Amino acid sequence: MARGRPQDPAKQQLSKQALRQAARDLLQQKPYRSISIRELAQQAGMQSAMVSYYFGSKEGLFISLLEESGEHRQKVFQQVAAEILQQPNQALALLVNNMIDLITSEPWLVRLLQDEILTQQSELRSAFLEAVPKRLSRGLLELLETLIQHNILRPDLNPHFAAASLMSNLMFPLLAEPVMSETINVNRDVIRSDAWKQHVTQVLSQGLMLNPAANHNSHSAIADQPDSDDSSQDQLSNDHTDN
Amino acid sequence: MARGRPQDPAKQQLSKQALRQAARDLLQQKPYRSISIRELAQQAGMQSAMVSYYFGSKEGLFISLLEESGEHRQKVFQQVAAEILQQPNQALALLVNNMIDLITSEPWLVRLLQDEILTQQSELRSAFLEAVPKRLSRGLLELLETLIQHNILRPDLNPHFAAASLMSNLMFPLLAEPVMSETINVNRDVIRSDAWKQHVTQVLSQGLMLNPAANHNSHSAIADQPDSDDSSQDQLSNDHTDN
Repeated sequence: MARGRPQDPAKQQLSKQALRQAARDLLQQKPYRSISIRELAQQAGMQSAMVSYYFGSKEGLFISLLEESGEHRQKVFQQVAAEILQQPNQALALLVNNMIDLITSEPWLVRLLQDEILTQQSELRSAFLEAVPKRLSRGLLELLETLIQHNILRPDLNPHFAAASLMSNLMFPLLAEPVMSETINVNRDVIRSDAWKQHVTQVLSQGLMLNPAANHNSHSAIADQPDSDDSSQDQLSNDHTDN
Repeated sequence: MARGRPQDPAKQQLSKQALRQAARDLLQQKPYRSISIRELAQQAGMQSAMVSYYFGSKEGLFISLLEESGEHRQKVFQQVAAEILQQPNQALALLVNNMIDLITSEPWLVRLLQDEILTQQSELRSAFLEAVPKRLSRGLLELLETLIQHNILRPDLNPHFAAASLMSNLMFPLLAEPVMSETINVNRDVIRSDAWKQHVTQVLSQGLMLNPAANHNSHSAIADQPDSDDSSQDQLSNDHTDN
């Protein structure tokens, strides 16, 4: 079974990482369905057999990539959510800046959404749903509900609608870049710019907050422990266990 | 050449319409790239040769469909724009309601965006760009610039950014429905509901307007002819010839 295959766990992890990186790189060049096991192995400097040895199949390798990305996004989101509970009046600025940075740092994921997840015949969609949006949507809805309860966001807001508005403003320009860059000059560089982030923050603050004018003045944290006003960012789970 | 092929122009128009309708119907069932000329003809009750007779190719048939849709959208948009110049304080409500109705009335176009236009290897993208968004984006930018000049929208707004925000909030939920319906319960029925339209109108009014509170009180039209305050809706082109 293991002839020529590394037994060392650390080495195995490195090989898996190299294959995931190969998958990311190839997604920049061509769609998921055109990428072959041979290309993935070649890009990672390995034998083709290593793909099924480590991941069972091409699909398994990409699912592993999605899970790694989902875990990373969940971690970043939890940090941002904890920061928001400390500075709730900055909620939209913190969400917009961090989420746009996160989304633009993984262009391969936008490509996968465009090429695969949103199409009619998508073999990766259910794995994607579990790995990325389902991991994040519960935390996002809880955060929005907390902000609504504390009158940071408008009390009449439906948290599901607020989540949809957030995702619309953060994701659409990247998803629709092939069209928007050609028609209204909103391209990837614009989306990364401070001017764009400020515009989205202002639209969403005015559109969703109860009192957007209070944005830069108040410092009252929502988190339960007012003595921990340093940058420790692990309060979200405590704050939400009673929901 | 014309053996068995209708010479009557009216009959030819009907046949072309039937083939475009077949294309719309089939897009509901399968992606563009899986649809064959034989299926298109069969769905329209014709011989396969009729597709190339009328449209040159399968691609030509779909381009004709896109052009028909683009012309229809342009006409609807011009009517909405004229109405907005009469009731500028209702600008966002009019845009949101009419545009959501328009977009949801053509689900095949959303499918084509998902399956084809946004993917890396898209043979239809440039035809789509010409037929639909390029036709609309200039008029939309002109309308937004007019509303900014007249202090209906915030004077600090970049019209390109405002257009991007509009399209994000109107289009994303439909485009991302395969994901949003599974994660935050925002599906096609929700997007068609009055509650959703009111939410989007409120977010965009508060996010983009200078004075959203004045929304329902003022009636001052922007259009140049204050005596024509009936529902005549052909003033947009007059109003914009000097731009």
